[in-house]
Amino acid sequence: MKQLRLGLSMFRMGYHVAAWRHPGNQPDGSMDLAYFRGITQAAEAAKFDLVFMADELAIRGADNPAGSRCRSSHVAELEPITLLSALAPLTERIGLVSTGSTTYSEPFNLARQVLSLDHMSGGRAGWNVVTSWGKEDALNFGHMDTPDYDTRYDRASEFVDVVRGLWNSFDADAFIRDQKSGIFYDPDKMHELNHQGQFFSVRGPLHMARSPQGEPVIFFAGDSEAGRAVAARAADVVFTAKQDLADAQAFYASIKDRLPGLGRDDEDLLIMPGLMPIVGRTKAEAQAKYDALQALIDPRVGLASLYDRLGDLSDYDLDGPVPEPKDPAFRSRAEGMYKLAQREGYTIRQLYTTLAAGRGHRMVIGTGEEIADEMQLWLETRAADGFNIIPTHLPDALNDFTELVLPDLQNRGLFRTEYEGATLRENLGLPVKSLR
Amino acid sequence: MKQLRLGLSMFRMGYHVAAWRHPGNQPDGSMDLAYFRGITQAAEAAKFDLVFMADELAIRGADNPAGSRCRSSHVAELEPITLLSALAPLTERIGLVSTGSTTYSEPFNLARQVLSLDHMSGGRAGWNVVTSWGKEDALNFGHMDTPDYDTRYDRASEFVDVVRGLWNSFDADAFIRDQKSGIFYDPDKMHELNHQGQFFSVRGPLHMARSPQGEPVIFFAGDSEAGRAVAARAADVVFTAKQDLADAQAFYASIKDRLPGLGRDDEDLLIMPGLMPIVGRTKAEAQAKYDALQALIDPRVGLASLYDRLGDLSDYDLDGPVPEPKDPAFRSRAEGMYKLAQREGYTIRQLYTTLAAGRGHRMVIGTGEEIADEMQLWLETRAADGFNIIPTHLPDALNDFTELVLPDLQNRGLFRTEYEGATLRENLGLPVKSLR
Repeated sequence: MKQLRLGLSMFRMGYHVAAWRHPGNQPDGSMDLAYFRGITQAAEAAKFDLVFMADELAIRGADNPAGSRCRSSHVAELEPITLLSALAPLTERIGLVSTGSTTYSEPFNLARQVLSLDHMSGGRAGWNVVTSWGKEDALNFGHMDTPDYDTRYDRASEFVDVVRGLWNSFDADAFIRDQKSGIFYDPDKMHELNHQGQFFSVRGPLHMARSPQGEPVIFFAGDSEAGRAVAARAADVVFTAKQDLADAQAFYASIKDRLPGLGRDDEDLLIMPGLMPIVGRTKAEAQAKYDALQALIDPRVGLASLYDRLGDLSDYDLDGPVPEPKDPAFRSRAEGMYKLAQREGYTIRQLYTTLAAGRGHRMVIGTGEEIADEMQLWLETRAADGFNIIPTHLPDALNDFTELVLPDLQNRGLFRTEYEGATLRENLGLPVKSLR
Repeated sequence: MKQLRLGLSMFRMGYHVAAWRHPGNQPDGSMDLAYFRGITQAAEAAKFDLVFMADELAIRGADNPAGSRCRSSHVAELEPITLLSALAPLTERIGLVSTGSTTYSEPFNLARQVLSLDHMSGGRAGWNVVTSWGKEDALNFGHMDTPDYDTRYDRASEFVDVVRGLWNSFDADAFIRDQKSGIFYDPDKMHELNHQGQFFSVRGPLHMARSPQGEPVIFFAGDSEAGRAVAARAADVVFTAKQDLADAQAFYASIKDRLPGLGRDDEDLLIMPGLMPIVGRTKAEAQAKYDALQALIDPRVGLASLYDRLGDLSDYDLDGPVPEPKDPAFRSRAEGMYKLAQREGYTIRQLYTTLAAGRGHRMVIGTGEEIADEMQLWLETRAADGFNIIPTHLPDALNDFTELVLPDLQNRGLFRTEYEGATLRENLGLPVKSLR
């Protein structure tokens, strides 16, 4: 039976905008190694394939409505590659997946750090390729604004090639390390990269042995045509945010259909949509958990979550209708959100509370069985090979999922009760890729 | 009584060019977290202030004499910031000092990773500022060659200012994290950097709380006038390589004499020369240890160590005289080394074995008492505030030092028997600096 792959999104204290305010949360958790140690070890005990850390390279929302930014917890966070490195010796089997920007990093540095994490964890590292879109990020790296979309994706595509090239600097059997003869490696098994491209010139080789899993696992999230093309060519795992089954199936097909033309098999690439489960012993209990979280959303934070699309609505009645976007700077981006409010008859408050939880990701409020049903349906109808589980708040929502959903999935034979292998690639059932 | 500060240089498997061939060594140690865990925990048990990791951003020696590069162990190494992050939860008190390049990094990324390590270790991180001189390094970052000296030091100086500015993005008491009111931080205690300089434009703030030790500790090694100026202004600790007492005293004075003019006190900056101790229970035993290591130097590796200064001497008799440099590309750099060989009457083999061990650093071959005598002399005559201990090979030479030198220093009241504080800054006796 086809197995579900499960990632745990460690979006610091949880993905819900009010996560840190939940009474079960540790409000300084995002700066505390012990907090992440507890979550990661719990995820490993539950046999998750991996923990995943998203990332931003700035404090966002500098121009958001007054009083919203100081209510965000995303202003004080440990950095992912260092945090996952610290978690490596504290775990044994779970994958450690760090986001890394192709726009604001050097490929040599990033290739080196990810492969170092990979070696220290015995082959459990992954790299989530992102191009970084925020203007605030750009301003921290000497740019006035984010490079345009095509430039970012062209650069990302070349960046991934350079990184993979560096990861293949040495063959697996290159190192002899014979103390007697004094020969450390076989020169015929070391390879200079000599990359000269549009964005990068990197000679190599990287001064690191080949990965215990061949290459670290490459994750990618890209919904555009350019993003899908890079993903199908270079990614091992694709993350996506899909609200309903048909959309997920269409996305799944659009990626998988490209694989044969690229010389790749269907099982060489996994598609893992985000899933935010809100679980109760009864549906009513689940709904009550959701309502309790929603009540923690400060209106200023709610308005800030609409700001990028609808502009500043601070002067409007929160319980009145969503005004038609007039500012041309917002108008084109506002359309979908405004139409949603019109269609559902949402007030401003209803709109931001609806969007605040999942923020684009599929959210399911229900019992363990209901959530397992949905996961099985998506798995069996080519909408997903697994899920990136996105808890509203940590550790509580992870514990709910582990206690109320996972045993059901295991009883159905859809999820492991023990790790199959030692490396992330083995546990994900992915082939060892090699450029050589 | 003034206390010695002691760092341990984890130059991967040891500083001696043949370290990895020593029978007591683990030849794949430089890729093995467990190997570094053992060394770091031993250094912590011995109450060293810190472990220090040097770094290079390439495999050096591409054009060295044939057969030399494949005999070097510096071709497969874990990356320092990820390695020290992994060591953070495995240690409790010892400082973790990573080298980071100001030429091939972005200040925002480097500031963030070092401060992340600092938080995860409870305030035990340090950053060793280097400008990266190798041409091979440049070729991995899209440059044809290393930027010129002045450019690198100007950039380093500005880079350090940006990093320190980012480390001060939030006041120590900025974070309220009040779940009830929903206020996460006090906006008056967050500071945008808005740096616009010759090399960098960085808005900030950095999304991380202030360091538990105020700021991570800044290390710097610079012997030139430009290097000394930056060190005196911005460093907490200065590393240096000095062969004899008079040179060390002159360097010490040249740095310390600048401090009053910069508004800094004498004890605000520590000078820690490198020291390679080769210790035996008797002088003869120490000498035998040294000779055994020297015998492990392959002639090709020895010739490679002379190559940068004297060119390729492969065609000469190893036991004949050192030829006068004729190639104008080498002539100016060769002068000091050639004169040394002339003065001492060294053969080629004698020259490279003499230089291969300490490579510029003070080496002392002797009993524990003799080495402790020398350390005390340097400490008490303003040549050093402590030492960066550079073992020839690890872990053996560290264990020798710990067993045969440290107890003597402790008996003299010159070195701690227990850590004084929780942070690196506290243990080094350095004040908490603050830009605010």
